[in-house]
Order: sequence, then structure tokens, then C-alpha cells
Amino acid sequence: MRRISIIGTGNMASAIGALAIKGGNTVEVIGRDRAKAVALARALGGDATIGAWGAVPTGDIVILAVLFESAVEIVREYGDALVDKIIVDITNPFSPTGSGLAIPDDTSIAQMVAEVAPASAHVVKAFNTLFRDVLASGGPRDVFMAGDDAQAKASLSAFITSLGHRPRDVGALSMAHWLEGASLLEMGLARNGLGFTLSLGIDFGGAK
Amino acid sequence: MRRISIIGTGNMASAIGALAIKGGNTVEVIGRDRAKAVALARALGGDATIGAWGAVPTGDIVILAVLFESAVEIVREYGDALVDKIIVDITNPFSPTGSGLAIPDDTSIAQMVAEVAPASAHVVKAFNTLFRDVLASGGPRDVFMAGDDAQAKASLSAFITSLGHRPRDVGALSMAHWLEGASLLEMGLARNGLGFTLSLGIDFGGAK
Repeated sequence: MRRISIIGTGNMASAIGALAIKGGNTVEVIGRDRAKAVALARALGGDATIGAWGAVPTGDIVILAVLFESAVEIVREYGDALVDKIIVDITNPFSPTGSGLAIPDDTSIAQMVAEVAPASAHVVKAFNTLFRDVLASGGPRDVFMAGDDAQAKASLSAFITSLGHRPRDVGALSMAHWLEGASLLEMGLARNGLGFTLSLGIDFGGAK
Repeated sequence: MRRISIIGTGNMASAIGALAIKGGNTVEVIGRDRAKAVALARALGGDATIGAWGAVPTGDIVILAVLFESAVEIVREYGDALVDKIIVDITNPFSPTGSGLAIPDDTSIAQMVAEVAPASAHVVKAFNTLFRDVLASGGPRDVFMAGDDAQAKASLSAFITSLGHRPRDVGALSMAHWLEGASLLEMGLARNGLGFTLSLGIDFGGAK
């Protein structure tokens, strides 16, 4: 059992929150609009609680389930409230057409988040390669993650496993750039006739 | 049956050549060092022929099975000998440590090849996400490809299918940047304990 805080009240927050509760984790929902957080916590059921915006989250793992445009600013605003936390960036910075990324070429949202997070926090990129419905439909699917702290990735791995998915460590946080691009590849594949039930995963050949 | 020319005489040339002959395609081997081309053609057997360096390749599909450092220069050197050809870039521009790419952040080897190729040639990125032994061991594995010309991708798809693998179209040539990064993700996964028999593939969930 892990203690999870989810910042955000949208589709991804709902999908992760539902799987988290099903997996026996405790979930705190945090929204700038408290009414939305209350509504999501009620919809999730279980013992989901509501956190105050900007206060220290109760979870050791804080899922940043917000639009990519807000992610960096929210972490900056939270500041020291995120000391020692594992911050999970799940965003995809798609350009308006969905054919490119709306960030500088040499970084990623995850790295930009890390730059403004407290030094003792550990940022991990994860979940961004799963379309919302794919994530929600249960697993197991491969959940790729990138981060610089092995212990943070181990904690997150246990959480991912509790969701019924498979944690897959791709390496350092700098790899978040390529994970964000991997979502673009998925968009391309989905649009070229393969549909939005797909996700990238690991093929070992032979027996699955 | 397709007519394939392979520029290069190394591991990837050998792996693709062997599968191509097994799949009923005709194969021409081209090496700057003609002795190596002769040796590879003999090793491949079938009706593999040897092409003269710099001459117009006999294949409609020209596989650029060379190191990434040479790819752009070779296509420039070939110049009009590649008019109307489908040029397949399979390179991975790994940095010396294998943790980053040794190219500018806003492009790919495939796009750099396209810049120096004849205007009537069609460059497609493909095969780079399969480690040599994975490619050689037969399939089916997903072979991701990126290119701007639908007909060229259709021709290449038929060739990939003849090799026993699955062609997977990720979109425009600009996506080659992310395919080159996808190989980095594979390197990260392989080094983090999953081994070098893996490849990225498409998971549709449920039935495969």
C-alpha cells in the first residue's frame, strides 16, 4: 500500500485514482478548484481524501495530473511543500497539431519540472505513453519511467505494479525527452490506422 | 519479390541480406571495399550480386547499411545515382556512451540524408529499432518506419513483410527523430536488466 496524492482532477487523475484505490493505495485528491477535487474524491470512493491546494501533500508519491502547460508553474508554486516527495510527471507536451512537441528541442517537461522542484524531491517521468482509456482499461501494459533516483523509481514501480501494470525503467531523467517523443510515435501509429487502443510495449520475441 | 540493393557489408547488411534472400527478393551488395562485398554476396548465397561503388544501384529499394557517421556523406557522394530510389536509413546515431544522440537536437540522420539526396528519391527511416540479433532471429517483430512518401512506404512495407516482420508506419520523415530516440529507450531498457533480445513493439492489449 502506498500513499498517493494526485494534483489535478481531470481524466488522467480519475483514471490513476480509480486504479490506485482498486490496488489498495490511499489516495488524496488535490485541485485548485476544491469543488472538483471533492467531486473526484467522491467518485473514486474508497477512503479518498481531499487535500488543500498548496499544502504539503499527504502522499509520498505526488502525481502531477495536469496539463503540460501548467506543470512547471504548479511545481514552482508548491515550492517547499514538495520537499522529499516523488513527483511524477505524466504530461505530453503535444503541439496543437499533435505532430510535434511544444517544448525546446533539448529538454522535456519532466526536466523542466525538476529544475523548479525542491532539491530533495525526485522527479520521475511515467504514464505518459498510455492513452487515458488504455491506462484505465487495466493491464498489464508497460509503463515506462525515467528518473535519476533509483529509490524513487523502486517506490513508483511498486505503485505501478499495484495498478496492474508493468513498470519499465528506461534510465535517467534525461530520457524523459524520448518518452515524450514516444507518445508522438504512438499518435502517429494510432492515426495511421492502428487506433487508440495501442501502447508501445516491450516485445521479447517468442513467448510473451 | 523486390529488388534490393544494400550499401554496406557489415552486420546489419548481412542480417537484412539474409532475410531478404530467404524472403524471395533479389539482393545486390555494394561495398566501398569490393572484396568485402564479394565475400558478403557469397555468404548470402542465392543470386546475390555485387554492385560497383557509386554506380546506379539495381534495386528500387536501397538500404543504407552503414555507420551513421558515413550515411550523409555516402548519399551525397552517390548523388544522382540515387534518382527515384527509395533510400532506407537504418542508422542509430548513438553518442559514444550510448546515452544520447550525436546529432543536433532538431533533426535526425534520416532528415540529414534527405537533405542531400536527389529530389526524386524518397528517404524512409526504418529498422533502426531492431538490434541486429533481434532482426536476424526472424519475426515477427514490429519494424517502425517514417517517411514522407506513401508509395515508398508501401513498397518498403511489402519488403518488410517478406522478411517475416511487421511494417508499422509512424508518419512523416520528421518522426525519424523520435525513432532514433526510441533506440535509446531500448538501450536504456536493455541495460536496466531486460537484455538485448527486446524490441519496442505495439501492444494492443488483450489478444495479440
